[in-house]
Amino acid sequence: MNAARSCLTIVLAAGEGTRMRSTTPKVLHKAAGRSMLAHVLAAAREAGGDAISVVVGPGREDVAAEAERVVPGAQVFVQAERRGTAHAVLAAAEAIQSGYDDVLIVYGDTPLIRPETLKRLRAPLAHGASVVVLGFEAEDPTGYGRLISKGQDLVAIREEKDATDEEREIRLSNAGLIAIAGARALELLRGIGDRNTKREFYLTDIVEVAVANHQAVAVEAAPEAEVQGVNDRGQLAVVEAALQQRLRRAAMAGGATLIAPETVFFSHDTVVGQDVLIEPNVVFGPGVTLADGAVIHAFSHLEGARVGPGVSVGPFARLRPGATLAAGSRVGNFVEVKNAAIGEGAKLNHLTYVGDAEVGPRANLGAGTITCNYDGFAKHRTTIGADAFIGVHSALVAPVTIGDGAFVATGSVVTEDAPADSLVIARARQVTKPGRASKLKAQFKAAKAAKES
Amino acid sequence: MNAARSCLTIVLAAGEGTRMRSTTPKVLHKAAGRSMLAHVLAAAREAGGDAISVVVGPGREDVAAEAERVVPGAQVFVQAERRGTAHAVLAAAEAIQSGYDDVLIVYGDTPLIRPETLKRLRAPLAHGASVVVLGFEAEDPTGYGRLISKGQDLVAIREEKDATDEEREIRLSNAGLIAIAGARALELLRGIGDRNTKREFYLTDIVEVAVANHQAVAVEAAPEAEVQGVNDRGQLAVVEAALQQRLRRAAMAGGATLIAPETVFFSHDTVVGQDVLIEPNVVFGPGVTLADGAVIHAFSHLEGARVGPGVSVGPFARLRPGATLAAGSRVGNFVEVKNAAIGEGAKLNHLTYVGDAEVGPRANLGAGTITCNYDGFAKHRTTIGADAFIGVHSALVAPVTIGDGAFVATGSVVTEDAPADSLVIARARQVTKPGRASKLKAQFKAAKAAKES
Amino acid sequence: MNAARSCLTIVLAAGEGTRMRSTTPKVLHKAAGRSMLAHVLAAAREAGGDAISVVVGPGREDVAAEAERVVPGAQVFVQAERRGTAHAVLAAAEAIQSGYDDVLIVYGDTPLIRPETLKRLRAPLAHGASVVVLGFEAEDPTGYGRLISKGQDLVAIREEKDATDEEREIRLSNAGLIAIAGARALELLRGIGDRNTKREFYLTDIVEVAVANHQAVAVEAAPEAEVQGVNDRGQLAVVEAALQQRLRRAAMAGGATLIAPETVFFSHDTVVGQDVLIEPNVVFGPGVTLADGAVIHAFSHLEGARVGPGVSVGPFARLRPGATLAAGSRVGNFVEVKNAAIGEGAKLNHLTYVGDAEVGPRANLGAGTITCNYDGFAKHRTTIGADAFIGVHSALVAPVTIGDGAFVATGSVVTEDAPADSLVIARARQVTKPGRASKLKAQFKAAKAAKES
Repeated sequence: MNAARSCLTIVLAAGEGTRMRSTTPKVLHKAAGRSMLAHVLAAAREAGGDAISVVVGPGREDVAAEAERVVPGAQVFVQAERRGTAHAVLAAAEAIQSGYDDVLIVYGDTPLIRPETLKRLRAPLAHGASVVVLGFEAEDPTGYGRLISKGQDLVAIREEKDATDEEREIRLSNAGLIAIAGARALELLRGIGDRNTKREFYLTDIVEVAVANHQAVAVEAAPEAEVQGVNDRGQLAVVEAALQQRLRRAAMAGGATLIAPETVFFSHDTVVGQDVLIEPNVVFGPGVTLADGAVIHAFSHLEGARVGPGVSVGPFARLRPGATLAAGSRVGNFVEVKNAAIGEGAKLNHLTYVGDAEVGPRANLGAGTITCNYDGFAKHRTTIGADAFIGVHSALVAPVTIGDGAFVATGSVVTEDAPADSLVIARARQVTKPGRASKLKAQFKAAKAAKES
Repeated sequence: MNAARSCLTIVLAAGEGTRMRSTTPKVLHKAAGRSMLAHVLAAAREAGGDAISVVVGPGREDVAAEAERVVPGAQVFVQAERRGTAHAVLAAAEAIQSGYDDVLIVYGDTPLIRPETLKRLRAPLAHGASVVVLGFEAEDPTGYGRLISKGQDLVAIREEKDATDEEREIRLSNAGLIAIAGARALELLRGIGDRNTKREFYLTDIVEVAVANHQAVAVEAAPEAEVQGVNDRGQLAVVEAALQQRLRRAAMAGGATLIAPETVFFSHDTVVGQDVLIEPNVVFGPGVTLADGAVIHAFSHLEGARVGPGVSVGPFARLRPGATLAAGSRVGNFVEVKNAAIGEGAKLNHLTYVGDAEVGPRANLGAGTITCNYDGFAKHRTTIGADAFIGVHSALVAPVTIGDGAFVATGSVVTEDAPADSLVIARARQVTKPGRASKLKAQFKAAKAAKES
Repeated sequence: MNAARSCLTIVLAAGEGTRMRSTTPKVLHKAAGRSMLAHVLAAAREAGGDAISVVVGPGREDVAAEAERVVPGAQVFVQAERRGTAHAVLAAAEAIQSGYDDVLIVYGDTPLIRPETLKRLRAPLAHGASVVVLGFEAEDPTGYGRLISKGQDLVAIREEKDATDEEREIRLSNAGLIAIAGARALELLRGIGDRNTKREFYLTDIVEVAVANHQAVAVEAAPEAEVQGVNDRGQLAVVEAALQQRLRRAAMAGGATLIAPETVFFSHDTVVGQDVLIEPNVVFGPGVTLADGAVIHAFSHLEGARVGPGVSVGPFARLRPGATLAAGSRVGNFVEVKNAAIGEGAKLNHLTYVGDAEVGPRANLGAGTITCNYDGFAKHRTTIGADAFIGVHSALVAPVTIGDGAFVATGSVVTEDAPADSLVIARARQVTKPGRASKLKAQFKAAKAAKES
């Protein structure tokens, strides 16, 4: 039934967020690897919002751009003056006028809201309610507006300061999110006045207006954690922690072992296969996929990487965007891989940088292998063939190709292509001078003594 | 008294563990660096189990192998069909028949159980009890079987669904572990029927059988945390956390400083000396010993390593199996040591890989020193003498020996042995071409312009 | 008013700290990067203690030295025998005799005490109190001495064992810190007797002495956390955690984002600018300053470093003392910087060690760049000019200067100065031997077969 009704979701994202003490607008601060605004927009879209409007403050092109990036086609409205939440909603009056069954008002700074909660919030509209208010049972309701009901109907949202002692006992508090029957939305919103000390138009007052017009107002409840708003960096950290807990639980439920879940930091979009093992202290940036049986050792940092089945990463590995590791390959300690395809069973075990490259199956890169992808002017690619063996401390100067089965001797700087099965050497011969170290030490001591005397 | 009584411990390890969503059998999942089964077997052995039998599911050679590895000589029985816990115990009927004073039934998925608890559980058998049941005061007993007592005797284990309101108030719940007088064990176990919806034989019903036969049934209690079973990855993480807390407390009680204990992850067998300092974020695999006064800096990963007195490790160091660090030596950042003995006061300060090697006392390995222990075909050893100095960016191609006091110049690839006190150079002469960099840049720009035009 | 009164603060630091199980004296154990004693001394000084005396145990030159280091001019007194806290205070009798308005007694092992609390503790002295006792509302008062009041006055500190049932209900407990009117301090302290089982002189008994002499005794209260004493490593970890929480909150309140605050470990003196982003798992040693907009990626370790505006550090970076990073510069993964000034916009992206160096603006150091600042005998400096480009795997052997805009080719060992705009090459030519790798493999296999036959 809900699905059959059209819905406009209006995301209020015009708040200044002064307490963030930031030059970045509040809703663009990130949690679990994406902006708070993006979290809310994603929830709205998943909940089936046919159309999404975002209300931003004046001059906030960056917020508008993020909205457009996440939901192409989202309409952006500017609230020119800050005159309260109802005033902000009315900035989107043009969209409301287009005629939707439901209008849903959400906030850009409550990124924990779930799509299923938004669906529930709209549900009573299909049964005749004109307004639905989202409430939550507050652990400590002090300071929140209380939801005052009569039978099944909500009769008022009572602010703390206006509440009787009895009303203060009520723990069901106002979360701020509201669903409105589209046909009546503008009328109700325009009925809200600004007769209060700050001379602002509060969305909350829509309940009073609806009641005065004998329209039905319903309540839906959400867990308190889900409606947590962010006003400062401490609350941002709380929201981040809540998102991480969701992501960790989901990974474990899917059959991954997290030895110390509290030390693993996922991105909102991390994909974790079955029988994946993640050791303590692993950080995921956006865009990572871990196939079944992958092992991510401690102290690893992954972003934009695809990790194949049974691959071993770390400890102390960094996978950057464009790293793809085929089945059974290994990326060991102090190794960085960027924009490179690592073949099946290939090994990059230690102290290595591979960027802009292809590494063939079963190739073995010795400790200290470095691809020189940047020559100071432009970036070039390195290709390493199947079963190639790159000796320790080798530099591969791109563009360069090492053929299948080729062998690069220790300490080589490879500037020319090496055919398959060839041996490449590019280093000086060793000269050993017996007794010379002792002489150097004696000279040094003499020089020092001379200086000091 | 207890010590004088012989005991057979039967470890039930045949559960499927479907909720783990894993191809690895549940009891082989690890916590604090060893399998859950190994934890339980170790507790059983420490508690003085003379003989240990393990009941495994059909086709579970891996579980049998782990039992044999941890307790050589453990008897393994296969429960061919899954027909309940009593049925599983009877798979070991042959062992029970051998005649022990006590038979103790424990579970492969409760790795937190302590040896002292197992001893207490057996104690009442020496005083005439036929059966002893392990209980725990549940924080929230919902769903657990309640232990119903009459005076000092246990009269029944009441399942939640069969309990009266009064019985539901009881918090003492059934942990599942049971001790049985050996002489009566088979008779009692065989008295258990399968008249229940699942047609299974429940070990719990032994209480009813014993009571019906006028035999004494006793109760012992354990802390709830100790009998936590593992059925999914979330519970595995909880058990891991509990083990880590035990290990951290023990390390601190022994005189080690853990700046942030919650970020240090021990193995079950980590040995930590006095006045050891462990900075935040350190991970220990199995087999690590830290001598008095060792300092492990942040972001270090140690496994199978012996760290001597006053040694400094990390930050960002990785010690792999076979690394032994003598007194006062230093292993610094981005350094990996594997199967290598580092002498007293030797220094491996940065960006170094030392594998399959001996490093003499006071030797100093410059940044970027790498031992090439693997030539693509086999592994070889490197020997570095006392007081040797290895210049930056050197590769030591094993098998190779650097003599005492020898000096390897920066950037050398050493392929031949260097005698004591010798100087080794293996690098090209520097050629400096004035003005050439500017020309290169000009050429590059011209090429780019040509391409674009 | 308080400010106008002179004050002697006596820090008791003579406890043995046996339960620390350490060869280091208890008060020298560190939290948030400085000794507990230094924390207490800093609080005392901030609270306006004109003179500070420290009472140490016999032979504790190390404690005396730390006191002198933190508060130059602090007077140190030795308590020759351990005969209780009042006896310890009287070791500083000479200082008390000098005549101060207030005498404040604090403890070297309660590092969480705040200056504002010390000020409050002294305040009642200005209003006629002879003694002021610091109390705290204990979560669980079991074991603490209870503060027994009559009206506004403290009449006694009742030890647990002497308390009536009614008195045990009192949660206000004795924290141990005491302020005494300077004019009466010696008289009151000398009035304390040792008639107790241990034959010690307890400072606590000063209340009884004052009351017996009809002098006013007042109480001030502090949060329990603030008066937490440290007697073992577990309590040290608790204190560390409390300090970290303060530091994290302060950083967030100042406008920094800590994605996972619980994984960031500050030093007591870390300076964090606005819009700084700190990813999970970052450890700060003493002396770090982060300018506005700096980003510290995961797994970074900073000590004694100045990080400029918009600088990006890590992941996996180590900044050591004397590292200064100018605006917009980047220090990437597996990079160590020590005693080096990095110019604006310069890049040290991977696998690099820069020590004792200057790096010019916009210089780009390739992966594997290493400054050889130590030649086995002494340390030397490296200077890299503006816009210089250092090729991958290069070693710069100090003392050496790379001029502005110079270009060092991949794999070079640079031992001589390179003029501005020059090109430096110091490497061998590449030799490629077709088919040779296959032959090597064949030879190896043959050798192996011969060995095995």
